[in-house]
Amino acid sequence: MNKFVYFFGGGRADGNESMKELLGGKGANLAEMAGHPDLRLPVPPGFTITTEVCTYYYKHNKKYPPSLKKEVETALKKVEKLMGRKFGDKDNPLLVSVRSGARRSMPGMMETVLNIGLTEKTLPGLIKQSNGNERFAYDAYRRLIMMYADVVMEKAGGIEVEDGKGIRKTMDEALESLKKQKNYTSDTQLSVEDLKSLISEFKNLVKQRFGREFPDDPWEQLWGGIGAVFASWNGRRAVEYRRIEKIPDDWGTAVTVQTMVFGNMGEDSATGVAFTRNPGTGEHQFYGEYLINAQGEDVVAGIRTPAPINEYSKNPQSAHLPTLEKLMPSVYKQLYIIQKKLEKHYKDMQDIEFTIEKGKLFILQCRVGKRNGVAAVRMAADMYKEKLIDAETAVMRVSSSQIIELLLPMLDPKAEATTKAIAKGLPAGPGGARGRVVFTSADAVEWAQKGEKVILVREETSPEDVDGMHKAEAILTSKGGMTSHAALVARGWGKCCIVGCSDIEINLAEKYFTTKDGTIIKEGDWISLNGTKGTVYQGSLPLVDVDLEHNKSYQEFMKIVDKIRKLKVRANADTPRDAKTALKFGAEGIGLFRTEHMFYGEGSDKPLFLLRKMIMSKTEEERRSALQELFPFVKNDIKATLEVMQGFPVTIRLLDPPLHEFVPHDEEKLLALGKELNIDVNELKRRADSLKENNPMLGHRGVRLGITYPEISEMQFRAILEAAGELILEGKKTMPEIMIPVTCCSSEIAHQRVIFDRVYKEVCSKLKIKKIPFMFGTMIEIPRAALTANKMAEEAEFFSFGTNDLTQMGFGFSRDDIGSFLPDYIENKIIPDDPFQTIDQEGIGELISIGINRGRSTRKHLEVGICGEHGGDPESVKFCHKVGMNYVSCSPFRVAVARHAAAQAVAEEKKQSTNKKKVSKKRK
Amino acid sequence: MNKFVYFFGGGRADGNESMKELLGGKGANLAEMAGHPDLRLPVPPGFTITTEVCTYYYKHNKKYPPSLKKEVETALKKVEKLMGRKFGDKDNPLLVSVRSGARRSMPGMMETVLNIGLTEKTLPGLIKQSNGNERFAYDAYRRLIMMYADVVMEKAGGIEVEDGKGIRKTMDEALESLKKQKNYTSDTQLSVEDLKSLISEFKNLVKQRFGREFPDDPWEQLWGGIGAVFASWNGRRAVEYRRIEKIPDDWGTAVTVQTMVFGNMGEDSATGVAFTRNPGTGEHQFYGEYLINAQGEDVVAGIRTPAPINEYSKNPQSAHLPTLEKLMPSVYKQLYIIQKKLEKHYKDMQDIEFTIEKGKLFILQCRVGKRNGVAAVRMAADMYKEKLIDAETAVMRVSSSQIIELLLPMLDPKAEATTKAIAKGLPAGPGGARGRVVFTSADAVEWAQKGEKVILVREETSPEDVDGMHKAEAILTSKGGMTSHAALVARGWGKCCIVGCSDIEINLAEKYFTTKDGTIIKEGDWISLNGTKGTVYQGSLPLVDVDLEHNKSYQEFMKIVDKIRKLKVRANADTPRDAKTALKFGAEGIGLFRTEHMFYGEGSDKPLFLLRKMIMSKTEEERRSALQELFPFVKNDIKATLEVMQGFPVTIRLLDPPLHEFVPHDEEKLLALGKELNIDVNELKRRADSLKENNPMLGHRGVRLGITYPEISEMQFRAILEAAGELILEGKKTMPEIMIPVTCCSSEIAHQRVIFDRVYKEVCSKLKIKKIPFMFGTMIEIPRAALTANKMAEEAEFFSFGTNDLTQMGFGFSRDDIGSFLPDYIENKIIPDDPFQTIDQEGIGELISIGINRGRSTRKHLEVGICGEHGGDPESVKFCHKVGMNYVSCSPFRVAVARHAAAQAVAEEKKQSTNKKKVSKKRK
Repeated sequence: MNKFVYFFGGGRADGNESMKELLGGKGANLAEMAGHPDLRLPVPPGFTITTEVCTYYYKHNKKYPPSLKKEVETALKKVEKLMGRKFGDKDNPLLVSVRSGARRSMPGMMETVLNIGLTEKTLPGLIKQSNGNERFAYDAYRRLIMMYADVVMEKAGGIEVEDGKGIRKTMDEALESLKKQKNYTSDTQLSVEDLKSLISEFKNLVKQRFGREFPDDPWEQLWGGIGAVFASWNGRRAVEYRRIEKIPDDWGTAVTVQTMVFGNMGEDSATGVAFTRNPGTGEHQFYGEYLINAQGEDVVAGIRTPAPINEYSKNPQSAHLPTLEKLMPSVYKQLYIIQKKLEKHYKDMQDIEFTIEKGKLFILQCRVGKRNGVAAVRMAADMYKEKLIDAETAVMRVSSSQIIELLLPMLDPKAEATTKAIAKGLPAGPGGARGRVVFTSADAVEWAQKGEKVILVREETSPEDVDGMHKAEAILTSKGGMTSHAALVARGWGKCCIVGCSDIEINLAEKYFTTKDGTIIKEGDWISLNGTKGTVYQGSLPLVDVDLEHNKSYQEFMKIVDKIRKLKVRANADTPRDAKTALKFGAEGIGLFRTEHMFYGEGSDKPLFLLRKMIMSKTEEERRSALQELFPFVKNDIKATLEVMQGFPVTIRLLDPPLHEFVPHDEEKLLALGKELNIDVNELKRRADSLKENNPMLGHRGVRLGITYPEISEMQFRAILEAAGELILEGKKTMPEIMIPVTCCSSEIAHQRVIFDRVYKEVCSKLKIKKIPFMFGTMIEIPRAALTANKMAEEAEFFSFGTNDLTQMGFGFSRDDIGSFLPDYIENKIIPDDPFQTIDQEGIGELISIGINRGRSTRKHLEVGICGEHGGDPESVKFCHKVGMNYVSCSPFRVAVARHAAAQAVAEEKKQSTNKKKVSKKRK
Repeated sequence: MNKFVYFFGGGRADGNESMKELLGGKGANLAEMAGHPDLRLPVPPGFTITTEVCTYYYKHNKKYPPSLKKEVETALKKVEKLMGRKFGDKDNPLLVSVRSGARRSMPGMMETVLNIGLTEKTLPGLIKQSNGNERFAYDAYRRLIMMYADVVMEKAGGIEVEDGKGIRKTMDEALESLKKQKNYTSDTQLSVEDLKSLISEFKNLVKQRFGREFPDDPWEQLWGGIGAVFASWNGRRAVEYRRIEKIPDDWGTAVTVQTMVFGNMGEDSATGVAFTRNPGTGEHQFYGEYLINAQGEDVVAGIRTPAPINEYSKNPQSAHLPTLEKLMPSVYKQLYIIQKKLEKHYKDMQDIEFTIEKGKLFILQCRVGKRNGVAAVRMAADMYKEKLIDAETAVMRVSSSQIIELLLPMLDPKAEATTKAIAKGLPAGPGGARGRVVFTSADAVEWAQKGEKVILVREETSPEDVDGMHKAEAILTSKGGMTSHAALVARGWGKCCIVGCSDIEINLAEKYFTTKDGTIIKEGDWISLNGTKGTVYQGSLPLVDVDLEHNKSYQEFMKIVDKIRKLKVRANADTPRDAKTALKFGAEGIGLFRTEHMFYGEGSDKPLFLLRKMIMSKTEEERRSALQELFPFVKNDIKATLEVMQGFPVTIRLLDPPLHEFVPHDEEKLLALGKELNIDVNELKRRADSLKENNPMLGHRGVRLGITYPEISEMQFRAILEAAGELILEGKKTMPEIMIPVTCCSSEIAHQRVIFDRVYKEVCSKLKIKKIPFMFGTMIEIPRAALTANKMAEEAEFFSFGTNDLTQMGFGFSRDDIGSFLPDYIENKIIPDDPFQTIDQEGIGELISIGINRGRSTRKHLEVGICGEHGGDPESVKFCHKVGMNYVSCSPFRVAVARHAAAQAVAEEKKQSTNKKKVSKKRK
């Protein structure tokens, strides 16, 4: 027969830390604290009913296993013995709390009932225990009735009520009404008589509402409480939370029944929360707050200002209050020793709940403390230095989002907490921003030039908007997905961006937008964006920023990261400025240099014009002449970036987009172009139209341009080789990797290589140079290329997976068009995640695996990397490590995130292999 | 040491038929005819120099193996002995021909030299041999000089000349000039004196042109001839031919040196060509033609009308001429016996070249005779009946294109031969057609209603053109590829169609088109199309047709086909009419019924309007109401087709195209719709615009519609099930297979299945029916679906590969947009074929293999088919057999082709396994 109840207390426990699946996080932790020989902390004794009971309960139509009752009674007897009190005893009653505890923490999602065992009959005993503190005892009884009515009778009883009409609300109103009537400002002013009258009123309310009496029987209360906790596992909020956090429904919760201790038994009692290190900064200092004569819920409620436990914990609000260290020096000392023990034992910063009942310290709970990004990094770096943890653990202690948090300015969380969002979209570019709304790229540029901070609001963006996007503080679009043009560009720049914000409707003609809640935002109005969450606020919210270069802990932490990771990290960078940023963030090369960038944004007028001239050429001769004019721009552009990246590889991708992307869309610009090119505008339109495609994604682009117009590839090869050659002549190291995009078969690469080899000879001879180092490789971004990778690797010296396109073609999802169905897919759990954000390992990952394995079957040491957006996504980076890539490449602002994820991949791998060893040892 | 020379003649031979690789087709055949005990035919003796010598020749800088000279001399001695003549002998000279012969026939691509060994010195000997026929001898000498100068001295000498300026042309002009001067109309009128003067003139011309004398030495002539044949292997035309026919360059050619026999030695001499059966009809009758006193080249030249060899071979032109049977009865009888022997030996219809020299019959060559489709089918069926060949051989005797030839009306080849094409495009829909040119779908409909035959000429077609396309005799587009809308639709209908005809430029406004050669074709002008070749003619060319139902041979042949094939063949059909056609062509079910067809073409007004209403609905409620109105149309549509196909499976695909495909494109129609729907036109435009997509191919379509609007799937499920249920109640057998399109993961199918199961119960209960048979499956047309087929098969009971989309996504080729680069790809041999025509086995085929294997790993007896255009492509059908599909589905007009290809797949497999057995036996 299974054991369903695990006792803890008095320096021993049935369970321990490793039994989280059975006892829940809380139960396992209490057992550990109570029973582990290194700890044996003063935990109020109690017992935990296992998660198996919860599973049983739901499988058996809300019945308990038959043996449970007996086990609970036995355990309770042990508690009574330890405490010297008796459950339901009128002279010296034992009161208990009933709490939930799932395998993984679900803070606030399930229910708790306190003060169970308190009845009219046992009240006098409690008064006696509190040295005649009648007010305390009646207040405890009042609290029990309120909580019980709410949690057990109403919620667990399945009574449906309208929002704000629950029993709890009614009771709160009665309480408030009494306070008002008596002119009280605080609950503590309530007299015994007041409490008695409230208790009587509450009991009446219970009877009226539920048609039965408040159960004034300890055992009925106890089983009611236990049942309510189990019921709360399937409460609406808990179910929702699990869905979001991906916690399986069948895990179930444990229930912990534990002796009540009271921090509100008088001035010698207190309750508090402490952290073994500062959770806001990471500083290695004992930090905490407490309240004299209060219960835990008072601390959480935030009605009274808590006092600092020590000098270190003082803040402006609490500086005048007495520290625990001063007020109860011996208790503080005891607590201090305990927190040291706890951190040493758990090897992580602990969040400790404690209560002092009549001068006696109890530890109610301890758990790994939450911390922000700055603190996480500092703690990890410090604990590694202190040899508390090893490098792998340090790396796992910081989450990717905490790294991101460190990198970006953000809206001040305090300001956000008090401001209502007016709209919500997809968080495409993290961080925060504020600015005045503009609706066109031109306006963004104009306003920005006047020194205004602007936020560009558009339905969608296109390459023509790049100038305005660049000038804007942030971008907000009403359409498009996480990998729409706006999202891609913004992420590349580390710019705050929200896309697909369907809550807003834009009126471009009259330059305003309205939100779902009816707010109208006009051009020039201030808004603020939280690009990490996707929320839009009206007005200008303050920003907070961090400085990494002088953040010693960050630098130390990243050294640990770099020590253990195996995957190299490069950046996608198109300009010397981007390249410098990339180096600053620790990039070890450029994994994607897009030759087409020079035709967008600042300084692009002349090259774009020449490109358009080339595109509009009717004959090869015309095209060659335009290309010749374009050549110096391309060469200088490449040379400048190669120069910044001396000693590092730079992967230069040949022209990728379909040519029509560069053709002006509007009549006016087309007219101007016609004039400049001296082509009749109708003829020009005809040529432009002939470039239009039904599915440009699958059209005439990438290497297909290089095959139909070999002279375009030729010009680019020449530019790369001359740039590299000139640098070598200047005594500089350079390593260009020439990358052919959009290939689907090896003969495409071979075709381009013939041109390259010819140009190579010509350049070497022109520059009088023997050798220019280079690699010649390909993107793998078309399913067929991955499937025939053994052939591709015959021609390609390296592969760079273009997972954006691979995902588009592998799924048949156009990333520009997924907005109309992907939300329904996620909503209906058809697919777990947006595959453009995190690599779909099952399908696209399979293509990548096939590609790498087949590629290396031909060329053993084939260099393999990834240069899509996924290169900056932590889960995807880990996948890249797992499948044996050599490097990932991501936007400069993501380099640190990728380095960290790469290190975590190694740490996770190590942990898994250790676990496997453990398992196999056990088997022996 | 390798043997380089193989002798034949006098009833024996060193080689035989099986040595084609070494001796070339001609050499092996001559050896077989001369030496095989069953044959021992009167072949002029000679010898063959092996293809290895050719390879050696090109590897060793055009030098021969040292032993060759001796071997040639030895072989020639044997010939001399047999013929009783001597090479170079002035009294009784032996003359020989030197001919090429590759492993596979390359007709007319390589060179031949005749009459070698004829010199001023040996001329008298030849005169003696011809009983003093001086004219004959000088004419032979004249021919030798012309041929030798052209082939050996100029072409093989590498002398480059402008077109029309070659030595041959110059000599021809000299000959013509002489004839004109003498008022001759025929070469035969040339006197001995004339010939002597020509010979002298020719020799001067040779000296002038090449700076050296015509070699009047037999051995120099012989080696020159041999060298010229080897040289011609790498001649421009031969190289091009090999490229087209995919013949490897390193095969090389053999050279056959053979005794000259002369059909022009007088009235007792003749030359002719005969076939063991009629190559035009397949009738089992000896058929042939001959010319008295002529050389082989005279027959080919077609200057004189050849006479029939027997009564059967008479035609209106030749009916008056004496038959060989009458003229030389004993020679005819000998020939008749030989042809019987040959067919029995080779078990196929033989094409025989013979020469009669002074009453003596010589067989110069025999080979498998070319035949047209009708004849091929008849011969195969007959020979199978005659037990000459087995079923597999019969099936292999007919090519797919011959089957196609049988199915379609075609332009009269005679008319085509005398008409110049005005343009050439891609042959998208085979067969022939003629009609008057119209430029819009509306015009096509209007003119057709007036009884005019029209050809619709457009830049490209769209679903809105379907009406006009249907009414037109044929379709001609200036843009688009082999799988453009026009091509697909036309092929589905078995309609003649030429696409991507860039030779024409359309002026839609003024309704005319111009061709590259300047021809202007106006609306109403007649043109004729050969859709098999892609040629366009001005005017109305006659058509020829075939009748299959009364073609007994065809019916017999298809029975053989059906007996051996394993793959089932279904048809893609959307209407009862199509379904009937499909049955007529032998379809065993419908593999693709497109629900959307009912919104195109005739009778679609009402359903299309309702569909548009549904599309333009703003709420689910509106949508449901429109769907309800649409329901009866859909149900009746499905029911009618199910009824036709009683007892056969019908795979019904849910709505596939993106919704915007159904939204009217032009302002006027949109206005009308707005009025009918009572929606403001601007609002309507907004809604229409919101449906537009950047890459509709990868957009909101297929199952994605069913997930965002489950009510659309629901309506379709209900329509299918009610249709099937009602038929069952009417006592009819029906087997609908419900097919979910555009799936990329199994949960999509599961999502739809939940809806289906609910509707199934509702329909069963409504119709009071216990069970409606059905299968529930999916298209596999997205790479991810193939890669995760093990998962897909958990939900899908059948797979149908949509290889069009699989090719689009696998290659990243939008079939609407490949026109801009695919021609360059084919041209540059980047890919061997248009992958939309024939499955790319290496890449897309790999996806299919993975899909089938993984699918069957989950569901062992998973039904697998294909329903793309490839289902009607013979090579692709064979691939489908190889990878273990259960069926292919193609357009009704392709069903016979697919059945035949499926049978060939089995035959080829059997042959391969026999060959393997042979090889392994040999090894033992």
